[in-house]
Amino acid sequence: MVEKRDIYLDNSATTRCFPEAAALMNELFLEDYGNPSAMHHRGVTAERRISQARKTLAGILKVKEKNICFTSCGTESDNLAIIGAAMAMQRKGKHLITTQIEHPAVLEAMKYLESQGFEVTRLGVDNDGLVSPEEAAAAVRPDTILVSVMHTNNIIGAVEPVEEIGRAVKAANPGLLFHVDAVQGFGKAQIYPKRMNIDLLSVSGHKIHGPKGTGFLYIADGVRLVPLMHGGGQQGGLRSGTENVPGIAGMALAAQMLYKDLDADREKLFAMKNRLIERLSTVPDIVFNGRTDETAAPHILSVRVRGVRAEVLLHALEDRGIYVSAGSACSSNHPRPSETLMAIGVPQKEMENSIRVSLSVMNTMEEMDAAADAIAELVPFLRRFVRK
Amino acid sequence: MVEKRDIYLDNSATTRCFPEAAALMNELFLEDYGNPSAMHHRGVTAERRISQARKTLAGILKVKEKNICFTSCGTESDNLAIIGAAMAMQRKGKHLITTQIEHPAVLEAMKYLESQGFEVTRLGVDNDGLVSPEEAAAAVRPDTILVSVMHTNNIIGAVEPVEEIGRAVKAANPGLLFHVDAVQGFGKAQIYPKRMNIDLLSVSGHKIHGPKGTGFLYIADGVRLVPLMHGGGQQGGLRSGTENVPGIAGMALAAQMLYKDLDADREKLFAMKNRLIERLSTVPDIVFNGRTDETAAPHILSVRVRGVRAEVLLHALEDRGIYVSAGSACSSNHPRPSETLMAIGVPQKEMENSIRVSLSVMNTMEEMDAAADAIAELVPFLRRFVRK
Repeated sequence: MVEKRDIYLDNSATTRCFPEAAALMNELFLEDYGNPSAMHHRGVTAERRISQARKTLAGILKVKEKNICFTSCGTESDNLAIIGAAMAMQRKGKHLITTQIEHPAVLEAMKYLESQGFEVTRLGVDNDGLVSPEEAAAAVRPDTILVSVMHTNNIIGAVEPVEEIGRAVKAANPGLLFHVDAVQGFGKAQIYPKRMNIDLLSVSGHKIHGPKGTGFLYIADGVRLVPLMHGGGQQGGLRSGTENVPGIAGMALAAQMLYKDLDADREKLFAMKNRLIERLSTVPDIVFNGRTDETAAPHILSVRVRGVRAEVLLHALEDRGIYVSAGSACSSNHPRPSETLMAIGVPQKEMENSIRVSLSVMNTMEEMDAAADAIAELVPFLRRFVRK
Repeated sequence: MVEKRDIYLDNSATTRCFPEAAALMNELFLEDYGNPSAMHHRGVTAERRISQARKTLAGILKVKEKNICFTSCGTESDNLAIIGAAMAMQRKGKHLITTQIEHPAVLEAMKYLESQGFEVTRLGVDNDGLVSPEEAAAAVRPDTILVSVMHTNNIIGAVEPVEEIGRAVKAANPGLLFHVDAVQGFGKAQIYPKRMNIDLLSVSGHKIHGPKGTGFLYIADGVRLVPLMHGGGQQGGLRSGTENVPGIAGMALAAQMLYKDLDADREKLFAMKNRLIERLSTVPDIVFNGRTDETAAPHILSVRVRGVRAEVLLHALEDRGIYVSAGSACSSNHPRPSETLMAIGVPQKEMENSIRVSLSVMNTMEEMDAAADAIAELVPFLRRFVRK
């Protein structure tokens, strides 16, 4: 009997928890389970866990502990940043700028704001999925209150020039806020909000080997947001609700582990990604969406396989225990043609041909070879026999 | 060497996870960690965990699975219910009714709505903390869109006549919605929303031996809410963001365990509470806030110790490894005079004298005796020697 070992290459959808994070959470579920708002020792201990997590995350970003606001997910971080800022600043203006390739958590928050009387400009991108800082600056108006550009695109792994964009849009209007959705970038790159002119930075726990149901928002000094949730006044009133102490601690530990060896991990990820690129380049009629050099994200590869529907390839790979994504798993159940692929100019007839392979530090070079072998073997077969 | 064993009597602030729930979550952190929106097998498995949880919770409430919307906490459930309903129904009217003794998650959501042009009526309560269904009905107007009354008060354990209130307010205006915050009631009582005229019911995971960072909202058929968060469209678009699969599964398992033996557990809780009442009744100048019979909650006892500041007693008990609460832990760090105690007519000079003892099925009768002994021993001492 041969054991089929799974090869998980859908790490941009979600990751396996680090065992260390899971063990810590288990301890907090069963032993150290106080409510951080309680006045007694168990409350104090729980509060200390939160402070410790705050300190870890603030240290990674080189910001103050009080700049970290814990949320329940990347989507909440994005919504709190965008809706919270828009509601707080609407007297200054009602114009927002974003891009065509943002995650639905940003795009849909923007749509909601449009329904509330705000106006949104959506910047296009070049064929590599990159936003132009000059174009961003040119779109800024006196009534622009917020610019939101993602750090790393979740579909093709484009890494946006956020530092340059931040500088350019702030030069055009120093009063606006700059939000960066770093859900795919945090844990894979050094991000320093202060140096990068970032006022608001969204992060999700389950993309970095932490638990689902966690996230945080960096909020620069002096930035005022209207809360999405009102209640007990936790986290300075910005996010009421008993803090998810185990989740917060687990997320922070995962982040700490990722940033401990970031350079080595990035190198390992790029080596695996480059192996995939090299191996898949030999398969006829395969194109990579976006850049394939090291200016792109180390962990995301978008592979367009002409003549094969992504969903079919996904399921054929799944049969071999290899898990990839068609588009992204972030916009649930009813997949829509990816905004990102359209924006970078993928031809309409090839819109359904792209799979996303996304790596983590838990993957191995052997898995890259196995995945490349499987794709190389399956693609000609699928091209011949499967109805397109 | 004597081992000091902790006696945790702050279960209305938060509870210890059931080890079974923690074990299940650990498995989902490390093995079955897919994103429920992923198209492949791991996504399907994760989605199945959510369906299973939904089925469990729907079964307990005797409602449909699609009526369960998962959130990140009780506060989110309350905010989604109240703000979401108000925003969706504002064309029908802008009047809401609640009580003076709700949790801050309800009271502050209402205050936020007042700042948005809504009008709120706050019902008083009798000396036992009970809302009158007749008074509630009398407050209903043609433009009333929502009535929100808690199931079980978190400070004194008053169990509100929600079924009667629901019937009365719906008779007065069939178009309004009835919201019940059941954060303290769920897991301690049978709650059947359909029989009780409840349209929206809020529950928190960490009050029922499930994990922090989880909760759910029951939403009756046909009720439309404006989401608080926009994004990938998970949960029918009502609550975007990758579902917290481990948390959801852990919460559902905890609920299942509590409802398996609800009657026996209630009996056990009442027996422990009655023992406390009996023992503490012998201490001079101790008063219980609210009812002490079995029309009150089985797990909450509010003890007013005249001449002793609650905070002082709390810390003296803590020194002996006994954890109680002064007021509640839900409105964080800066405790304010409890709305509930004021509303039931506790004299101003006794406002700081109440501790809350809150039990769970994990407590024992021996712990009740030890706690009663400690209180009986400490109170005369504190009365004599501590500055009031």
